[in-house]
Amino acid sequence: MASGFLPFLAPRAVAVIGASNEPTKRGYRALQTLAKDGFAGDIYPINPRAAEIQGLRAYPDLASVPGPIDLALVCTAARTVPEIIEQCGRKGVAGAIVLALGFGESGAEGRELEARTLEAARRGNVRVIGPNTSGIFNAHCALNLVGFADLRKGGIGIVSQSGNVALALATEGALAGHAGFSTYIGVGNESDLRFHDYLAHLGADAHTTAIAMYVEGFKEPLRFLETAAEVAWRKPVVLCKGGRTTTGQQAARSHTGSLAGDYAVAKACLRSAGVVVVERSDALLPVVECLSLLREMRSRRVAILADGGGHATIAADALGALGLQLPELAPATRERLAAVLTPQAVIANPVDVANSADSAPGVIAECADIILADPAIDALLVVGMFGGYALRFSETLAAAEATAGTRFAALLGEHGKPIVMHSIFAPRKPEALEHARAGGIPLHGSIEMAALALSALAEYSEWRRRPRRVPAAPRTPPERAQRIFETARAESRRALLEPEALDLLDAYGIATPPHALVRNEAETLAAVERFGAVPLALKIVSPDILHKTEVGGVRLGVRGATEVEAARVALRAAVRQKVPRVDIRGVLATPMAGRGVELIVGVTRDRQFGPVMMFGLGGTLVESLREVAFHRLPLDREEALELVASLRTQEVLDGTRGLPVVDRVRLAALIAGVSDLCLAHPEIAELDLNPVVAGADALAILDARIVLVG
Amino acid sequence: MASGFLPFLAPRAVAVIGASNEPTKRGYRALQTLAKDGFAGDIYPINPRAAEIQGLRAYPDLASVPGPIDLALVCTAARTVPEIIEQCGRKGVAGAIVLALGFGESGAEGRELEARTLEAARRGNVRVIGPNTSGIFNAHCALNLVGFADLRKGGIGIVSQSGNVALALATEGALAGHAGFSTYIGVGNESDLRFHDYLAHLGADAHTTAIAMYVEGFKEPLRFLETAAEVAWRKPVVLCKGGRTTTGQQAARSHTGSLAGDYAVAKACLRSAGVVVVERSDALLPVVECLSLLREMRSRRVAILADGGGHATIAADALGALGLQLPELAPATRERLAAVLTPQAVIANPVDVANSADSAPGVIAECADIILADPAIDALLVVGMFGGYALRFSETLAAAEATAGTRFAALLGEHGKPIVMHSIFAPRKPEALEHARAGGIPLHGSIEMAALALSALAEYSEWRRRPRRVPAAPRTPPERAQRIFETARAESRRALLEPEALDLLDAYGIATPPHALVRNEAETLAAVERFGAVPLALKIVSPDILHKTEVGGVRLGVRGATEVEAARVALRAAVRQKVPRVDIRGVLATPMAGRGVELIVGVTRDRQFGPVMMFGLGGTLVESLREVAFHRLPLDREEALELVASLRTQEVLDGTRGLPVVDRVRLAALIAGVSDLCLAHPEIAELDLNPVVAGADALAILDARIVLVG
Repeated sequence: MASGFLPFLAPRAVAVIGASNEPTKRGYRALQTLAKDGFAGDIYPINPRAAEIQGLRAYPDLASVPGPIDLALVCTAARTVPEIIEQCGRKGVAGAIVLALGFGESGAEGRELEARTLEAARRGNVRVIGPNTSGIFNAHCALNLVGFADLRKGGIGIVSQSGNVALALATEGALAGHAGFSTYIGVGNESDLRFHDYLAHLGADAHTTAIAMYVEGFKEPLRFLETAAEVAWRKPVVLCKGGRTTTGQQAARSHTGSLAGDYAVAKACLRSAGVVVVERSDALLPVVECLSLLREMRSRRVAILADGGGHATIAADALGALGLQLPELAPATRERLAAVLTPQAVIANPVDVANSADSAPGVIAECADIILADPAIDALLVVGMFGGYALRFSETLAAAEATAGTRFAALLGEHGKPIVMHSIFAPRKPEALEHARAGGIPLHGSIEMAALALSALAEYSEWRRRPRRVPAAPRTPPERAQRIFETARAESRRALLEPEALDLLDAYGIATPPHALVRNEAETLAAVERFGAVPLALKIVSPDILHKTEVGGVRLGVRGATEVEAARVALRAAVRQKVPRVDIRGVLATPMAGRGVELIVGVTRDRQFGPVMMFGLGGTLVESLREVAFHRLPLDREEALELVASLRTQEVLDGTRGLPVVDRVRLAALIAGVSDLCLAHPEIAELDLNPVVAGADALAILDARIVLVG
Repeated sequence: MASGFLPFLAPRAVAVIGASNEPTKRGYRALQTLAKDGFAGDIYPINPRAAEIQGLRAYPDLASVPGPIDLALVCTAARTVPEIIEQCGRKGVAGAIVLALGFGESGAEGRELEARTLEAARRGNVRVIGPNTSGIFNAHCALNLVGFADLRKGGIGIVSQSGNVALALATEGALAGHAGFSTYIGVGNESDLRFHDYLAHLGADAHTTAIAMYVEGFKEPLRFLETAAEVAWRKPVVLCKGGRTTTGQQAARSHTGSLAGDYAVAKACLRSAGVVVVERSDALLPVVECLSLLREMRSRRVAILADGGGHATIAADALGALGLQLPELAPATRERLAAVLTPQAVIANPVDVANSADSAPGVIAECADIILADPAIDALLVVGMFGGYALRFSETLAAAEATAGTRFAALLGEHGKPIVMHSIFAPRKPEALEHARAGGIPLHGSIEMAALALSALAEYSEWRRRPRRVPAAPRTPPERAQRIFETARAESRRALLEPEALDLLDAYGIATPPHALVRNEAETLAAVERFGAVPLALKIVSPDILHKTEVGGVRLGVRGATEVEAARVALRAAVRQKVPRVDIRGVLATPMAGRGVELIVGVTRDRQFGPVMMFGLGGTLVESLREVAFHRLPLDREEALELVASLRTQEVLDGTRGLPVVDRVRLAALIAGVSDLCLAHPEIAELDLNPVVAGADALAILDARIVLVG
């Protein structure tokens, strides 16, 4: 029975510590549920004040139990726990589930208690689930230590930072009559075992075919990503992240103490590890269910088969909004459809059968067969009222409809293409839909959920088709680069000066615009001579100034020696007036850039996921627009191209409104170069190239800001 | 019984034309349903080949029927319909429901048939529902002419361009056990009666408390808006619009032939008429149900009462994403909560009761009472497992839980503040939830849906609080303005020249930047003299050129007489080279604008809703970013302020990144002025001020483009 990394989650013998004859106590209900569900292993109630509990012999303590124990459910109060874990260790108990609240989540005293519990666990070689967990279940060995009623056995594993989210999944799964569950683990405070441990366990567990997770924050985010990338190759991992918004993050802080980083960053990191991230908690079950049933979708090309034009339109809207495509059907497909449909049907994509199926529901399955044979189509979304013809029109249709349901299930195997079904009548569970469902077709009562499930399948399939990449080791920094940091360190600076930043980029082979540091009239003249008559930009260079514009430290479009020198002097004076004792190192002169698209390439350190590349629309409005995409470092050029392609506003890169077409290859090289640079220098806290102006045949870095770790 | 504008929708006598003894026919099922539901009026089956149908005396035609008939259900084929409508007219039938397909939606022949049907209807004074309608029902007089099973009687009216969408609402309503329905009308082809007629009817119908609509396109969008604005004052109107995306619009075209305009425009127009627009079809019922139960929410300040931190976080995320606020609870509220909760509870907003209710579910209602008494709170969202304590923990809790359900319902009246409830156990209908529900608390199985319903309530309440505005009559155009258009017309031009556009703005009191049309060296010198040494922008003025930049027709930042004159000559030459026989009227010279926020103020003519104001972030990327908001013309200054405030990226207007704070009053005056201008001149097809640079103390219109109706 045991599989996965944590064999005690399929125990042969369980102790319930704090077993009770009082019906409202967990120590009562756990025993009751084990008995009711028919747990096949040994059950040992532990209670020093009772000889028998619920008909089972009780023991005063673990030491008195005659046989071995794999797993202990600890139902007693927080203060008793360190001692109990000691006893577990002495008895050789492999795993302990600690339910009590009152540990790290509740202040200093609780933190101390949690530390002592962990020490006892380490000493005794006991793995701890919790504390502050809602419990666990393993439906495949009738081990229900969380007390959810009506558990349906199946392939979906759950790991959750919230017992209620798991309870909602289990309850909905039991009612909707589709999904079944394998193992649930409430992670609680993650004192010992953590998200990645449980994920690895379920990844290896033979009963688990797909994994649903609710997470507010990770204690070891990078290990989670590593584990996820491994597990996701084998089975789908669907995750809903709490704390997407500021208000949600505040709530999460009260709940699990999680300090969430930027949600967009987390989502990007999780997605590139193959995790399917859903934005709504009510999408978790529909999506994981769909992915547990259907594995491969060869492309985003979907056909819609509808009974009813309204549902056809709604489905087309929903798929379109999710980036799925509705290609035209081949002429042969249209001809074959025309042969089985009435003249009122719309034979396009969506197909609307109109009244064709009202007295012959089998027509729907026939159309599905025809559409799935079309090579332009890689998946089918059926929407409308299949399953309800008998209910809606006449009982005489029930037999034909049931046969069509079975036919649908067969089509899944015959064509090897995903079919997802929406039906108004899904909650009524008519026979036709039960046949389709039993044959592995995911069934939804909401068109929007069905579309979302299909798009999740497309995303997961795309991820699995990507080549697995082994990141290269960080480069050894060139000596030139090291010297730049040494200088900054020697001066105790928190940021590089702009000329230093440009030199650093140059040291990593990143093309920087021509520039000169001018400190006096002679240098001005030399610079003007070098750059010619073009208009120049002048910027103050000072370790004291981070936002140059705000102190009048920038002049644009000045040209000719006289004007440039006058501007240089005026600029210094203006800055000195605003910042009296400012340390001015000179003025940076660069030719003004041509017309182009203003982009940003930046690296920040996310609180959870470490250094992250940001790419998107640059300029002053970057924070307001948030038209950016993220990718965790490192990125090679291929990944950089994917990052560029993941920006929502692609047309901006493709020459909209007479802007130049951005050279993506050059841009990817820049991004990959910045990735190399930042990985080689962990002393970089933040890097911002903003704007990078992408012109017809150049990328001009107009501003480079590098902040050091404080 | 009759109420509303279409009294035949509550008929005393109904004829079924094409009545049948064949169970799969509509003419059979309609009679069967009328009998089964106990329709109290007279029923006349019409069939020339039968003396009796389903036990009722049948008549060969309408003329043979002895009594009067209010409503006819026409079940026969399309080709028979014009003649049947003639007969209806002769018999004095007030309304006819035409089910057949094969009319305007199906080509030229069908269009002719539809025209003949309409003529017959007009002649005979018969109002037509359809053709190509799924039918209607009026649950309050047991008139079910659409054949939906298990209709639940209640207050929600439905008007839909899709029978399946209505069927889905009715089926979900019956199963979810909350909503009941009054009248449904399938609009079909809207040959005679249209969306606004039905809306006006349901607005006046005493049985209807809220209205749900599914619309792909309007035949008379402006009359719909007018009607909606009237009806929405009295009862909520919730609308889901098909054709939001390009793919959806294509599908809608096949379905109803609707040529949808821009979805964002439609949404803005509908919202300002008080219509609550939902983006997902699966949100239609939850939202309309909530609005039918709860009417007034005084502000966006909500408290969350959760059992379970995970659900607290998810609810906070969902409300936060929808723009609702979670204010802090008053100290007195927190104290009172602390007195009833365990130490493990989190007393903030969200409140998480933790384990406080596990053995005393009444605590939840007690907390609700305490929270609702807090003056900082105007609505309560309860999330988690209320209704499931007995199921989850112990049957012994059932009585206390049921009492708490009743208490919740009482709190609604006591505090006069909306309560919306989410429960994992909603679909199981435990007694506690049935009590709350019966007392008028909307109940949801999804936290995200509950949050959406609450935000819809907030939006609707805000709309109802707005003063009702009577738009001023269009201004009489000043003579100066008329002359500008006369000149353009005389030259058969499709657009105004930029100096004309600026003059026109000026004629309406809109501040334009200083500018001069220079056509020779003397005019250049005069302009440079007038503007001083500041850098100038030069732009080609030509009726042949719409996109000046693309033909090299713009020079920026030139200064001094020599440079400006050289640039003027070079610019003309460059344009002439690209566009050989170009008609150049001169070069427009204006001082370069200072730093500021680039905005767009524009007016377009929407295919459905006519002239619409667009406001948002301007510049070259305006189409790609779509960071814009819309409002139908006219707009007064108040409405213009609201339009400005509805832009998503508000921080851009509030001085982000050292940009100036935008003067909203000045901006609103500009927008209202443009509204006046465009209403006074219907010959304007499109107007674009882009960019309008909003500086610290000025708005500079850097480009003005006015295109005329072709």
